[in-house]
Amino acid sequence: MNAHDLVQEIIERKGKIENVFWIACGGSMIDLMPANELLKREATTFTSTVYTAREFCLMAPKSLGEKSLVIACSHSGNTQEVVDGCEMALAAGAEVVALTDCEGSKIDNGKWTTWVYPWGEGVSQVEVPQGIGALIAAELLDQQEGYEALADMYEGLKQMDALLPAAREKVNAELGDRFAELCQQHKFFYILGSGPNFSQTYAMAICSLMEMQWQHCCYIHSGEYFHGPFEATEPGVFYFVQLGSGECRPMEERALAFLNTHTDTVMVLDALEYGVGEVPASVRSYLEPIFFYNMSCELRAARGKVFDHSPEIRRYMGIEQY
Amino acid sequence: MNAHDLVQEIIERKGKIENVFWIACGGSMIDLMPANELLKREATTFTSTVYTAREFCLMAPKSLGEKSLVIACSHSGNTQEVVDGCEMALAAGAEVVALTDCEGSKIDNGKWTTWVYPWGEGVSQVEVPQGIGALIAAELLDQQEGYEALADMYEGLKQMDALLPAAREKVNAELGDRFAELCQQHKFFYILGSGPNFSQTYAMAICSLMEMQWQHCCYIHSGEYFHGPFEATEPGVFYFVQLGSGECRPMEERALAFLNTHTDTVMVLDALEYGVGEVPASVRSYLEPIFFYNMSCELRAARGKVFDHSPEIRRYMGIEQY
Repeated sequence: MNAHDLVQEIIERKGKIENVFWIACGGSMIDLMPANELLKREATTFTSTVYTAREFCLMAPKSLGEKSLVIACSHSGNTQEVVDGCEMALAAGAEVVALTDCEGSKIDNGKWTTWVYPWGEGVSQVEVPQGIGALIAAELLDQQEGYEALADMYEGLKQMDALLPAAREKVNAELGDRFAELCQQHKFFYILGSGPNFSQTYAMAICSLMEMQWQHCCYIHSGEYFHGPFEATEPGVFYFVQLGSGECRPMEERALAFLNTHTDTVMVLDALEYGVGEVPASVRSYLEPIFFYNMSCELRAARGKVFDHSPEIRRYMGIEQY
Repeated sequence: MNAHDLVQEIIERKGKIENVFWIACGGSMIDLMPANELLKREATTFTSTVYTAREFCLMAPKSLGEKSLVIACSHSGNTQEVVDGCEMALAAGAEVVALTDCEGSKIDNGKWTTWVYPWGEGVSQVEVPQGIGALIAAELLDQQEGYEALADMYEGLKQMDALLPAAREKVNAELGDRFAELCQQHKFFYILGSGPNFSQTYAMAICSLMEMQWQHCCYIHSGEYFHGPFEATEPGVFYFVQLGSGECRPMEERALAFLNTHTDTVMVLDALEYGVGEVPASVRSYLEPIFFYNMSCELRAARGKVFDHSPEIRRYMGIEQY
């Protein structure tokens, strides 16, 4: 499947899409968030919203209907909330596209379009939800309104593929051990980020650390930091800053200037030091979360080694009933 | 000023509003969030989005224009990011309404409509940003599309005024001491909530606790809890649950059932035990954040007494340059 043809077929079938809803849970929702940000910012004749799937059902928007496109994602394909969201959208007459890694899973049931994606080492960013989401958003924007940066989006995704191997090595070499050590010294810490990257600030907290490392932490929007959270800053409190390279960088820079003089424990992951600045500026903010996601994978693995806690270990998820 | 006439004048002047942007920072943004949730769910012919003010400027949406209504809020009236956001919106031709507690402040400069609101004990919920926001949203919805629950919204706000005094006493008597004790025992804890109440989950974390008590904590969406955060749950980890009385309650109930068997430290603030269930169901979810905000004020004060840390104390905000 490819985003261009999929979007073309949808528009041929449904006419112009008036609103897009991205529905998923946890890591899968996070992967769709940058695509939503792209449309929130760029689209002028249709709208875009992201929901955690259960809330989408419980607080169903009245604007969901025949002219809606619902993009769902469930990695396992068996997340009941997401399947329920797709059913609700289908009943409302919406066009539904479900992304999943698992062919034949609950969500791959023939009722709607299912896009089965590959996962794991060596898979291109174009083929996984962050890339697919960005391309669906870009194609929809282009085919409905025109989108100058469409070619940049395809090019940018290739560049992400190219820069990630060296970036992974670099983050491991330069930050891995120190990050693990800081986790040993701090039962709790804060992670800062903003803009589309904030999806990965949240992801680093709830997926890489809470879920995969049982590490307590909190995600803070860099722009919001000065409107409350900064009062909790003092020496001994650890802050991890995802320093983006796009439009929102000034928010991190301002927070960082304060952190550097008000705590003794800051770790900065600066996207500009990893080649992300070479991605076209027009699309960089929407693709950069891919960089931060991949760096989080390395850092959680580095922590996992020191704590003897593989990021694959779960004690409840998929094990207990809940 | 009143919401009905303000909205009527705006529509007379501008014609139909096509999109609403709520812009503010921290606690002021939080106060506008339920109004945004109302429009996100109910509106079918116009849209609504909330932004932290700096991100609104840095990632300016292309749909901002002549048919936009920007509702800004700065309690002090001097939040530069919010003033900048209003300037940008004005330059784009949008209708701008700024809420502030401070007459003659930077944001009350004659360039746009300023709504100066009172603050403090005895002020009705109708007169402060959470109420004003809900009424502007409800009036805009009613005057542009019709809104069946408009009368319920006015009635519900009166009911909030009526129920809060006893609710404050009750939360103090039943939870205050224990909450302060749990804060003494836990350097860090989690707060859960969902739906429009999630604004107050975030608020309790970043305003009442981080800012006003220098207490480390993290805010978790109850529906997202099972998609990552619950792996960090174990005996000894403290969870505070804002158990809502509206459509989203099933998300908290599910999280609570798990918490009750997987940690030994849960405190539940159940809106139904405080009379919130008597507010009309049609509008309850959008007004309930008022309840949670007011309960947070009591709980932070209870903590403050035990820690000898008044919620009025700041060490950086409005004191240092940043």
